[in-house]
Amino acid sequence: MELLTTNNVWMMLCTALVFFMHLGFSFLEIGLTRQKNTINILFKNVFIICAGLLLYYIGGFNLMYPGFEEGDFGFLKFAGFGITAPENGMTPEYANGGYTWWTDFLFQGMFAATAATIVSGAVAERIKLGSFMIFSIIYIGLIYPIVGSWQWGKGFLSTLKIGEAEGFYDFAGSTLVHSVGGWAALVAVILLGARIDKFTPNGKPQAIPGHNIPLAAAGVLILWLGWFGFNGGSVLSADPSGTSLVLVTTCLAAAAGGIGAFVLSSILYKNYDLTMFLNGILGGLVGITAGADLMSPNEAVVIGLLAGIIIILGIAFVDKLKLDDPVGAIAVHLICGIWGTLAVGIFGSKASLDQFLVQGICILIVGGFCIISAFLIIFGLKKTIGIRVSEKEEVDGLDNHEHGMDAYPDFRINQH
Amino acid sequence: MELLTTNNVWMMLCTALVFFMHLGFSFLEIGLTRQKNTINILFKNVFIICAGLLLYYIGGFNLMYPGFEEGDFGFLKFAGFGITAPENGMTPEYANGGYTWWTDFLFQGMFAATAATIVSGAVAERIKLGSFMIFSIIYIGLIYPIVGSWQWGKGFLSTLKIGEAEGFYDFAGSTLVHSVGGWAALVAVILLGARIDKFTPNGKPQAIPGHNIPLAAAGVLILWLGWFGFNGGSVLSADPSGTSLVLVTTCLAAAAGGIGAFVLSSILYKNYDLTMFLNGILGGLVGITAGADLMSPNEAVVIGLLAGIIIILGIAFVDKLKLDDPVGAIAVHLICGIWGTLAVGIFGSKASLDQFLVQGICILIVGGFCIISAFLIIFGLKKTIGIRVSEKEEVDGLDNHEHGMDAYPDFRINQH
Amino acid sequence: MELLTTNNVWMMLCTALVFFMHLGFSFLEIGLTRQKNTINILFKNVFIICAGLLLYYIGGFNLMYPGFEEGDFGFLKFAGFGITAPENGMTPEYANGGYTWWTDFLFQGMFAATAATIVSGAVAERIKLGSFMIFSIIYIGLIYPIVGSWQWGKGFLSTLKIGEAEGFYDFAGSTLVHSVGGWAALVAVILLGARIDKFTPNGKPQAIPGHNIPLAAAGVLILWLGWFGFNGGSVLSADPSGTSLVLVTTCLAAAAGGIGAFVLSSILYKNYDLTMFLNGILGGLVGITAGADLMSPNEAVVIGLLAGIIIILGIAFVDKLKLDDPVGAIAVHLICGIWGTLAVGIFGSKASLDQFLVQGICILIVGGFCIISAFLIIFGLKKTIGIRVSEKEEVDGLDNHEHGMDAYPDFRINQH
Repeated sequence: MELLTTNNVWMMLCTALVFFMHLGFSFLEIGLTRQKNTINILFKNVFIICAGLLLYYIGGFNLMYPGFEEGDFGFLKFAGFGITAPENGMTPEYANGGYTWWTDFLFQGMFAATAATIVSGAVAERIKLGSFMIFSIIYIGLIYPIVGSWQWGKGFLSTLKIGEAEGFYDFAGSTLVHSVGGWAALVAVILLGARIDKFTPNGKPQAIPGHNIPLAAAGVLILWLGWFGFNGGSVLSADPSGTSLVLVTTCLAAAAGGIGAFVLSSILYKNYDLTMFLNGILGGLVGITAGADLMSPNEAVVIGLLAGIIIILGIAFVDKLKLDDPVGAIAVHLICGIWGTLAVGIFGSKASLDQFLVQGICILIVGGFCIISAFLIIFGLKKTIGIRVSEKEEVDGLDNHEHGMDAYPDFRINQH
Repeated sequence: MELLTTNNVWMMLCTALVFFMHLGFSFLEIGLTRQKNTINILFKNVFIICAGLLLYYIGGFNLMYPGFEEGDFGFLKFAGFGITAPENGMTPEYANGGYTWWTDFLFQGMFAATAATIVSGAVAERIKLGSFMIFSIIYIGLIYPIVGSWQWGKGFLSTLKIGEAEGFYDFAGSTLVHSVGGWAALVAVILLGARIDKFTPNGKPQAIPGHNIPLAAAGVLILWLGWFGFNGGSVLSADPSGTSLVLVTTCLAAAAGGIGAFVLSSILYKNYDLTMFLNGILGGLVGITAGADLMSPNEAVVIGLLAGIIIILGIAFVDKLKLDDPVGAIAVHLICGIWGTLAVGIFGSKASLDQFLVQGICILIVGGFCIISAFLIIFGLKKTIGIRVSEKEEVDGLDNHEHGMDAYPDFRINQH
Repeated sequence: MELLTTNNVWMMLCTALVFFMHLGFSFLEIGLTRQKNTINILFKNVFIICAGLLLYYIGGFNLMYPGFEEGDFGFLKFAGFGITAPENGMTPEYANGGYTWWTDFLFQGMFAATAATIVSGAVAERIKLGSFMIFSIIYIGLIYPIVGSWQWGKGFLSTLKIGEAEGFYDFAGSTLVHSVGGWAALVAVILLGARIDKFTPNGKPQAIPGHNIPLAAAGVLILWLGWFGFNGGSVLSADPSGTSLVLVTTCLAAAAGGIGAFVLSSILYKNYDLTMFLNGILGGLVGITAGADLMSPNEAVVIGLLAGIIIILGIAFVDKLKLDDPVGAIAVHLICGIWGTLAVGIFGSKASLDQFLVQGICILIVGGFCIISAFLIIFGLKKTIGIRVSEKEEVDGLDNHEHGMDAYPDFRINQH
């Protein structure tokens, strides 16, 4: 009982930290975009937290953890609406004493909203609020828990065997959370098109500077703090060696990611770009997430450093494809999510060619499902109520048209 | 001993989270007001934290928890100035192993300052700093702990019986904290009068937009995070089923409050009002606070949804009464505080007509005492040193006159 | 095992809180300086976190805790590069069950970066980024862990005896962290010289107002929150009486420091200066840090109050010496660090004339070593690559020249 209590305290702390990541995402997204769309972005983020929790309560949790046999498909065995704790939900028997059923629900619920938040940044400054809300509801309420059930709900990814490798491995969600959001971000960005002025007529990308860099930097530090809970809580108990190693690998990867991105970007672009530094930290964090419990500190540093390099190349690559992702969400969450997932096959205690193949195949399965799902939802919205605001609204800013409010009415603004 | 250690860790974590709520209040209050009064509001908030802790140390804690017989009046048995731990204060015998005496003091001390902070928002942009500080000292140092002693100090509210109902119930302070602040806010707003320009000559309320909405939104998210500690810590131990259920009901009520307010306000006012969404979250949090440990998740969602609706109607009602409450403190803390307290009689494991009556009567007792106390203090200040700054000072902004500083000297400002 | 788990949870929480202090430092430093140098300051802070952790991982941790005999000099017995947990690192045998080896590394690693962060504020708005980064690497990587090893690594300070007093006492680092940073700040400020316009030709100090006071205030509240971990974690276990008393003394000293500074500054300068209030809180926190576990609450209040007074006098004294310290780092971290260290000899359970002498001598030893080290590094940089940006760059702002970015491109700025 003492151990259940301690484990549960740790899990509640981690839940609080993952909740706090939403402030990090909010600050990052508004910081890296223009002031005229600030209210709109905040509205989306606040909506996602509230809707995400309620949707997870209404059905997502049961959909994701249906208590079914190993290897089944989640969405065939939906366990019913609403939540009621099982009989052993408050006892050490539940979850091997790791936490109570209520904590389980809340911790997982905080994860659920994250996927849609990732999309929010990529589509900022031009998506219709109503369409984004409908997309979020379906994607958080249905797609995220279905994919989650395939692995964390003991579904078929968790049992996929190739040679010696037994099952997909994704500790805290490089694939199941970050790339699930990242794939949808990719689809949405393609279907939406770039912001006006992002590319010159002959296709050269133009920088559209973020309006509040202190908040962007604060966002990244808050996200890093939140990752203590995101990865630390994914141990699913307060096991001393598990949790403390995970925090070490997480922090070292973040630090190495930042340094890697800073060094490469200062070589390539001959200046000290704070945004690249910050994205490097996030890349390191996403990169370590799939295997934070499997890596030695040395391996964590290598994974982070490479993630920092991948971020710089990834952001340039996304630009080259003429995709407009205002906050770098695709490079951070999708590309580094893939990198982190593959890294489980290259580094750490599970590394093997077979594991690498399993990781790769599962990335493709999840990617395929997410692309198709996101495409159906967003394309459907595009053909019906539309997904993009009018040109006038985009130029004026979404805050005025959708919300009738200014984010900073006392300050004089440079219109652009 | 292991359990005491774990419980105590949880309580210290919750103490830290409640402390952090003061940043949430600060951000919310400055975000929703004009930049010319930013320093003044921050000064008030920082003062309240420091003065609140010291006053609670000097006398408040002993006044609130006098260790007297059940049913007594707190202020008759003041246990003396200063704090010294009792002999069993560091042992599992103290507080049933929930925490140590020092943790008890600090956790309760963090609550004490909250009541005055609530008033701070309502009187912003026109109150004299000196008068506010004197009011705060008396209200935190004397009124808050006296009311608290009536219930949490085992006073007469905690033993008030009507029929089957045995004693008032207020888990974490919908009444004892939020409405104690809310009643004083109401009295202060009436005695102060509205800001210049808040109402047109024929009485129509004018919007005075807040100057930094990102900080206001951050404030609400930080407050939500703080509520993990505010409600989670009110379990007074790390009991796994108690704490984890409380976090679930708290978060679901917050989410439902936000959605309720957002939906109703978008129907009534035909736009997506972020401020209303944010206030809805706060309303849900205040609403669940009295019964967070008694409710099922379903009931928490209902209480939150109704709180979200009440907020929208409450803010309109306060406007209609020609009361000027810049941050909506009366609707959030007083009206939703009353709602949450009554909800204990309607929903959850204590619901009954008798309990509802006890709740209602105790709301009236607390309300009466707070109104009279706040009136005596504020009216006394009004008749002596004055409570309102000069018209010139109000128009110029309090920052220049009281503090000789600008909050944002590098930025060009729209004067208004 | 249960107790190890609980202790470890507490230490991980404290680690997260100390990490979060970097956001506090960032906000404080940018808030109190001009907007044209915001990116530069953020860059320095983010760099310090990442570099600090990696350097501590590469060698600092082994340098600081070399596992050598009591009384030795740390840097003679460097235990090797990289980190690998010792055999008992995950068991209750390690650190008396206080925490695991990984947690030990990460908690101490979070401290390491703090020293350089303190310098960052003092040299803001005129130091060359490259030089600052080189300084930080050497100072965090070498000087900080060497000094730390003298005391926390069981080195010769910890065994220095005078009469009855057995060893230097510095609970959480008034000297070992804060003054280590503070001495380097002093040296750097002298070698750098003041910002253009800080002093009139006849030597009168001019106020250069900070550009974002809400962020500065938020920074102080975040730092206070972080101090729950900084001091609370320095108990090195979750021992209920130790940790909860430490949090009480820490918070009371902070509150008293704020009130002391506010009252004295309003008497001296006839206005309500928020910056002085905030610095008073920080002074109280630094002041209690050396003896937070030794003091009664009454003594903590006295130490804090005096720290608040010392801050006001200290800031005036630094001005008088014509030293330009934009954020008051020397007064807060060096002067209050000395005060807190001496206070261990005056108040609390170790107070004695002998202890006071030990404290004073060790302050001088550490101060001498830090001054010489910092001088050698910074003077070396000055004579080679230079430490100060060009006058044009300083006037234009470092953000444009070093980073090619604006912190707030959408806002109209008053150039100054």
